[in-house]
Amino acid sequence: MARIAVLGAGAMGSALCTPLADSGWDVRLWGTWLDDHLLDAVEAGQRHPRTKAPFAQGVRTFRSDELEEATDGANVIVMSVASVGVPKVTEMALPAMQHADAIWLTSKGFCPDEGGRIELLPDALRRIAGQAGVTLPPMVAIAGPVKANECAERKPTATIFGCRDGEVSLRYARQARTPVYAIDHTDDEVGVEVCAPMKNVYAIALGISDGLEEATGIPHHNLKAATFARAVREMSLLGEALGARPETAFGLPGVGDLEVTGLSGRNKVYGVRIGRGERADDALAEMTRLEQTVEGVPAASLAAQLVAQRAPDLVGELRLMAAVNDIIGGAGDPATLVTQAVLPPAP
Amino acid sequence: MARIAVLGAGAMGSALCTPLADSGWDVRLWGTWLDDHLLDAVEAGQRHPRTKAPFAQGVRTFRSDELEEATDGANVIVMSVASVGVPKVTEMALPAMQHADAIWLTSKGFCPDEGGRIELLPDALRRIAGQAGVTLPPMVAIAGPVKANECAERKPTATIFGCRDGEVSLRYARQARTPVYAIDHTDDEVGVEVCAPMKNVYAIALGISDGLEEATGIPHHNLKAATFARAVREMSLLGEALGARPETAFGLPGVGDLEVTGLSGRNKVYGVRIGRGERADDALAEMTRLEQTVEGVPAASLAAQLVAQRAPDLVGELRLMAAVNDIIGGAGDPATLVTQAVLPPAP
Repeated sequence: MARIAVLGAGAMGSALCTPLADSGWDVRLWGTWLDDHLLDAVEAGQRHPRTKAPFAQGVRTFRSDELEEATDGANVIVMSVASVGVPKVTEMALPAMQHADAIWLTSKGFCPDEGGRIELLPDALRRIAGQAGVTLPPMVAIAGPVKANECAERKPTATIFGCRDGEVSLRYARQARTPVYAIDHTDDEVGVEVCAPMKNVYAIALGISDGLEEATGIPHHNLKAATFARAVREMSLLGEALGARPETAFGLPGVGDLEVTGLSGRNKVYGVRIGRGERADDALAEMTRLEQTVEGVPAASLAAQLVAQRAPDLVGELRLMAAVNDIIGGAGDPATLVTQAVLPPAP
Repeated sequence: MARIAVLGAGAMGSALCTPLADSGWDVRLWGTWLDDHLLDAVEAGQRHPRTKAPFAQGVRTFRSDELEEATDGANVIVMSVASVGVPKVTEMALPAMQHADAIWLTSKGFCPDEGGRIELLPDALRRIAGQAGVTLPPMVAIAGPVKANECAERKPTATIFGCRDGEVSLRYARQARTPVYAIDHTDDEVGVEVCAPMKNVYAIALGISDGLEEATGIPHHNLKAATFARAVREMSLLGEALGARPETAFGLPGVGDLEVTGLSGRNKVYGVRIGRGERADDALAEMTRLEQTVEGVPAASLAAQLVAQRAPDLVGELRLMAAVNDIIGGAGDPATLVTQAVLPPAP
């Protein structure tokens, strides 16, 4: 029985334990120093506080001071912590990572290095490892439209594993599949990694249309649909500029994940608040007070830096990304900014 | 001032009058023999009964026996009747059509010829004209995410004009644009025409996820998103097989129009009913009783015939289209059929 250690006991890490256990892995879940209350609950047989779903059976849990035990003999290590925690947890787990057959990543985001250069997460992990003289095994980016609670509830879920070595993503797609957790596979690591944080940025814009409907009583479905199409286009352009295949944005990692992120979740809710008329900074402050992290907010800023650094030809082209940054910064009327960004320009 | 005659006073035909009048056209709206009550309302200064929106000012209306007057001197004729009425209205309007500079089409659907061969609508119009010895001017297919009521209310709307002659679609995209009715343009007539009816088929499948949520109290967002991604993929495959560019399905005509159709409308509602547990034939009977036409139902059957006739390699590949036909026919559990169709197959 192959052993897999999931690092991070939040919603996604703990939810992933269900299909992994169901597909026959020896699963170990390690919680960070922020996860003790989550592990308290599941160890007491309660539902996971974040997913509200039953926790997978037969999974051993480990506390933050038990990383070595958690990762001992693991064939695969899964990075499932919030993106801001990735560098630190990577450094801590390097001894185990270098002996694993593969690293999987459900963490998503853009990561600045010490010099302010914005990296995709797999590149950041490889850099951190390289600085420590460690060569990492193949990395598998996990993406697609997966709400953690539905995954944990064994509702039908489609995901995609992306590894530069397509044989590796294919092998694990076979080994982790269940009847309700179906896995596609690709060798387009960059495409998968670009879509994952960008869909959070664009979900803010989708939420604005919903908020306009709430505020005015009139649906803004045409605007929402134009926003959706524009977001998909921009994800494909950005991916392509960074070396991805454009079609990745048109599949589960782009179109699929944007759809699920636009249906619910904090990024969308933040957009809804703004569309309803709240000031962007007030909306963010209120959500922060409610301990609701809006990942799309830092991602939008990091994305703009990434584009300036590595895809400068797209600076004027990614109009919706720029509009979301303007909206977050309070620079103008949100409805007008979204409309101008997503309607086709005069031909 | 260029003159344009819109044939069909239903929701889309009447809504289109607003941006056309706003962009400076001399607009004439002709109602069919089914549209008298609609014209009664707008001529009395009331809101249009279908869109519930104010009717465009300065538009002359014509009754079904005034087709000649309505189309007299028209530079452009717009076909906006329900797809079943297209052959008859085309025959009636041929004398005017052959003298126009262009025919625009907002009607959408697959059209069987006398021998049962399934055609896209522009091909059907050209065939009908050809049989009468008439050569038609360029045809412009109008598509994208446009709910008629929002268009009539001047809410921000993105649409796309598709003509084999790209210069023609570009010219009219410039001439009909308003600040809130923004027009993209393409020379991919086939791509635009394939997406328009197929998105109605796939919106039924999207509705099923919503209905499952209503029935169980548990969101099925992962399933809905996987359904969305699969639908986009199948639209691109079918378009490509018929000569379209695959990217058309990834833009406003595919991704955009599927998004808006999945947000509301009769095709989605029919799917919601089925997802909630109604038998498919009961749901259709009830909607028929309520005079709610579900365009995706005949389109699904015609699409299957079209695929068998003209893209036989795709018969096994368009799994979601086949599942929707099975669901309409009552052949199996809808949730299972959708799930099997949209989850990635075992690699």
